[in-house]
Amino acid sequence: MTHGHSPIRVAINGYGNLGKAVEQAVQAAEDMELVAVFTRRDPATIKPQFCEAVAVSDALQWRDKVDVCVLCGGSATDLADQGPEFAALFNTVDSFDTHAKIPEYFAAVDAAADAEGHLSVISTGWDPGLFSLARIIAQSALPDGKTYTFWGRGVSQGHSDAIRRIEGVETAIQYTVPVEENSQRIRAGEELELTTREQHTRECFVVAADGADRERIEREIVTMPNYFADYDTTVHFISREEFDRDHTGMPHGGEVIRSGHTAGGARQVVSFGLTLESNPQFTGAFATATARAVARLAREGRTGAMTVFDIAPAYYSPLSAEELRSQLL
Amino acid sequence: MTHGHSPIRVAINGYGNLGKAVEQAVQAAEDMELVAVFTRRDPATIKPQFCEAVAVSDALQWRDKVDVCVLCGGSATDLADQGPEFAALFNTVDSFDTHAKIPEYFAAVDAAADAEGHLSVISTGWDPGLFSLARIIAQSALPDGKTYTFWGRGVSQGHSDAIRRIEGVETAIQYTVPVEENSQRIRAGEELELTTREQHTRECFVVAADGADRERIEREIVTMPNYFADYDTTVHFISREEFDRDHTGMPHGGEVIRSGHTAGGARQVVSFGLTLESNPQFTGAFATATARAVARLAREGRTGAMTVFDIAPAYYSPLSAEELRSQLL
Repeated sequence: MTHGHSPIRVAINGYGNLGKAVEQAVQAAEDMELVAVFTRRDPATIKPQFCEAVAVSDALQWRDKVDVCVLCGGSATDLADQGPEFAALFNTVDSFDTHAKIPEYFAAVDAAADAEGHLSVISTGWDPGLFSLARIIAQSALPDGKTYTFWGRGVSQGHSDAIRRIEGVETAIQYTVPVEENSQRIRAGEELELTTREQHTRECFVVAADGADRERIEREIVTMPNYFADYDTTVHFISREEFDRDHTGMPHGGEVIRSGHTAGGARQVVSFGLTLESNPQFTGAFATATARAVARLAREGRTGAMTVFDIAPAYYSPLSAEELRSQLL
Repeated sequence: MTHGHSPIRVAINGYGNLGKAVEQAVQAAEDMELVAVFTRRDPATIKPQFCEAVAVSDALQWRDKVDVCVLCGGSATDLADQGPEFAALFNTVDSFDTHAKIPEYFAAVDAAADAEGHLSVISTGWDPGLFSLARIIAQSALPDGKTYTFWGRGVSQGHSDAIRRIEGVETAIQYTVPVEENSQRIRAGEELELTTREQHTRECFVVAADGADRERIEREIVTMPNYFADYDTTVHFISREEFDRDHTGMPHGGEVIRSGHTAGGARQVVSFGLTLESNPQFTGAFATATARAVARLAREGRTGAMTVFDIAPAYYSPLSAEELRSQLL
């Protein structure tokens, strides 16, 4: 339902896994319409299912035909520049996730968006995004407590890439695995001080080149600083066939748990969990709901940069206020 | 931290379990100050720990000394009248939970608050409240799916009261218990059609009067329409000593689970859970966070009635926008 408004016109910048997921989510939304996919590649070489592909250099010409542009740049490096650039052209949504650089990125996008009267929501998706929402709500309800985030079981692209750079590795995938015993103890109300090692383990599936020294590969993985040295890491060598059969999905998920006490002394536990068969599809789905919120907030005259902390939940939903109160309250 | 504002002055109406929980939560919040507890009883007979007790008939005199009043009326009957009455005097927060009457209650509070330039947030707490938030967020991220709410294990006051009205029952308590097998299957990604009976069971602990007919009591419980007839109900007869030792807490909690598919076809599961040692303490804690939001939104000039759907999460937290982005995003 569009409640009297014309459909929200959505563009996508970048046509990788995330861009494709946003395309499908927008197409499925009755109150949204997909108008263009911007790409750095030759537009003739990509085939969006539901709209035309446009060279990113022509994006300026779409300025008045797009209500919100979802930035699906594949990495923080893309977004660091694209975020402010696109915020000058369109209302935007992105999933910027380089945590340490968020203040700087927020300021750059805020300035660019504000100068042109646009609105940009940065760092949406599930973490940052839904997990951030869970953290703020749980901490606000339960100020005296401790919040834990467990990720996985799921694929870490960065860790998989790190393994693939080792000599003799043909391909590899890395799963981050929560230490279930400890997440269960926290869910049951214990407040634990967990080391990195006690919170997650890392599981690697490696296709080695013929004749490669597997012992050396394994040693290089498990001792790799920052990536693996602080974790209990398991390495499995598998065949290319096994890899292609069992390890091409992108599952992920995890859990935010806050355990603490209300002021009267009672122990209380709040938890929020995701079990995702496809990480990019879910990220794209929530980015699409966020695009709806951006278009509506922009219509109300809001400008500059925002995060999920600044969005009232009703803006994400296509339902009217009356429907929300009668169906979901 | 108060970020340059003077503390939020909070009043409480009603000094039962919920009122006492709000009192403690407000007292623990650095940016809030408790100024009065309004009561229908003789104010001399109640002893708030941190402020004075005031006859509710004198509430009008506190109109300019209170930023937000938390309505802790013990039942929907209290609130149906108190909600609009107090919304004419103060900005208010309440935990109205008679689901079928929410549209009518919302309209009455909205009109009363709006006429006097006040802001009222109705139906906060955990359900309605945090569970409502979980439902809207999960449904917005995952439009194609099904949402389940499991309550418990926890005390239902209404069902406990119903048992206590049976002849020969000295006292009793009823626990609502989720059918764990089915919640697990849903969490694992199944979409089930559950009957009432398949979703919850009911467990009753009854202290019978000397010489009472236990078989009749049990039969009257398990066949009671609306309350028990549609459930698998277990009745345990216990002694007064056992009751006082094991059944005077007010634990509760539960889980909202949404299971569905993103538009690309992947199965995704979102869940939000609470394990509460004290239901009123947790309800009071989130009502207090909501009172912070109301005071801030009222300062910005918002009036009328709202629900949790209309509140951006940042308003619940005492942290600044910069702190939220660097610590919780």
